Amino acid sequence: MTPFTSSRAQSVAAHGERKLIAGIRRWLGRASPVSPFGIGDDCAVIPPTRHHQLVTTDPVIWGQHFDATVPARAVGAKLLKRNLSDIAAMGGRPVAAVVSLALAPQTSVRWLEQFYRGLAACALDHNVKIVGGDITQGPTGFFGAFLTLHGESAGRRVITRSGARAGDSIYVTGSLGGSLLGHHHAFTPRLDEGAWLAGRPEVRAMMDVSDGLAKDLDSLTPYGLVPALDARAIPMSAAARRRARITRKTPLAHALGDGEDYELLIVVRAGTDKLERDWRKRFPKLKLSRLGRFVPKNQFPADALRLADYHGYEHLR
Amino acid sequence: MTPFTSSRAQSVAAHGERKLIAGIRRWLGRASPVSPFGIGDDCAVIPPTRHHQLVTTDPVIWGQHFDATVPARAVGAKLLKRNLSDIAAMGGRPVAAVVSLALAPQTSVRWLEQFYRGLAACALDHNVKIVGGDITQGPTGFFGAFLTLHGESAGRRVITRSGARAGDSIYVTGSLGGSLLGHHHAFTPRLDEGAWLAGRPEVRAMMDVSDGLAKDLDSLTPYGLVPALDARAIPMSAAARRRARITRKTPLAHALGDGEDYELLIVVRAGTDKLERDWRKRFPKLKLSRLGRFVPKNQFPADALRLADYHGYEHLR
Repeated sequence: MTPFTSSRAQSVAAHGERKLIAGIRRWLGRASPVSPFGIGDDCAVIPPTRHHQLVTTDPVIWGQHFDATVPARAVGAKLLKRNLSDIAAMGGRPVAAVVSLALAPQTSVRWLEQFYRGLAACALDHNVKIVGGDITQGPTGFFGAFLTLHGESAGRRVITRSGARAGDSIYVTGSLGGSLLGHHHAFTPRLDEGAWLAGRPEVRAMMDVSDGLAKDLDSLTPYGLVPALDARAIPMSAAARRRARITRKTPLAHALGDGEDYELLIVVRAGTDKLERDWRKRFPKLKLSRLGRFVPKNQFPADALRLADYHGYEHLR
Repeated sequence: MTPFTSSRAQSVAAHGERKLIAGIRRWLGRASPVSPFGIGDDCAVIPPTRHHQLVTTDPVIWGQHFDATVPARAVGAKLLKRNLSDIAAMGGRPVAAVVSLALAPQTSVRWLEQFYRGLAACALDHNVKIVGGDITQGPTGFFGAFLTLHGESAGRRVITRSGARAGDSIYVTGSLGGSLLGHHHAFTPRLDEGAWLAGRPEVRAMMDVSDGLAKDLDSLTPYGLVPALDARAIPMSAAARRRARITRKTPLAHALGDGEDYELLIVVRAGTDKLERDWRKRFPKLKLSRLGRFVPKNQFPADALRLADYHGYEHLR
């Protein structure tokens, strides 16, 4: 199902702006608090906080982040989950979101309702309030929803991408690759895991894997170091293997390059096996894999994985 | 000048994502602090605050909010100013912004540089930090920049749209209409004025005029009341008169319906002329006009302005 309708009567243009905003409030239901803490004023108001504030923004755009195979409800949920994954990667908890829509006049009101109901259900699951937004007309064939999510640090620390040192271990949660077969909209943002990891003093840096491990790991790698990974340690998803049978690439290439994994990539101080043991007690159902370690450039082991041979997802091609 | 180029070499697609992000950091300069307080991590980090937080979001989209007659620098400034006007309308001060871009592969790097330099200059003027964002490919012919602005209350009070009562006076700053002749991108957000007004106990409600007075005043009007305005009191801009000579509509129709005025519309407790006197001392260069008052529906004066005869800007037509 596409976001658009050929029936003028069922389009947002026929519905009109006021009715649409009233509809959005109804579809969001309890996920949208009343003004001044919610929709309907010049700004949304969020109470003061003693924690560090976190802000992140990611959209879903028709043709880029979803197609006609993805149900509208899943598109709405994906919009929020993409952003939740960024909050998780800093060890934060989400608080409130605003949504700016740009949509073609031919956008279907029924599709939009399902989109917002999916967004609302996901927001309630994660205790996020949808506090405001904007609707603007876009060109024919365009649907884009741009969400900005506000959160705050869960504990005292915020984990950034910098901090890795030579000898530090590299870990990843879950398994990688093949997201196109469903994971790209059916994933679970690792919020509990991120908050727990941020509370561990041996965790030095963290990010979420959105463009594929081969590309994203660059962002955690300090100047002068390289990641030395063991190819056999890369946790390949069943979907990566299934994709490989279709594409004739290797499952490893899919695990390293597909993107949209939304798992956590974690840098941990060397010599602490306790993190792994405590993880298994706290999150027995979610795999935590040690992929390798950071080494000085001139000490790259001959048998380590050559990441430069793999490509993560490149935007703007 | 349009945001697009026919030269592949000068397009964002040829430039690539990494170089583009490096360019954006350079173009933003001092308007973009270093990580973790700025661009380059999963989330931006903003320090804790003891004030109420304000959040607003407004985009600029090619063909909707600007055309080839508007310089790229002015488009960048307009993106921030639209949002600053919303912060002003609550009596707040701006703090930090994130920008989510959706752009065609044919977007010109030079146009984008000017856009960001305009955004940066405006951000420095208003002490706003650009702390993060996202870049996503959009369809051919599309350019949209979606900004979310964070602010906080300047004083103890946040002024919302609700609070008007029967007998309250209605004021507007500056003059209205004809924004298409240049004001729509050359306006000044009323931040100092908004913060000053929020500190006045006689101010009951406030908003900014973005879709035209005829439409926007509805949002300030409580159930059971109507605004009784004096047509002669509406402050018409010179541009409204110039537009009227072209369109053959009345200057009043332009003043009430054009939209993009970005002036403040203020509801003030009856019987307090002191506000007007103090305003003239504090803001001698900016007109403050008393347009009329709120009356019960069944007491609408025969000679008052019939706003229903005029239309504000309707989105999604």
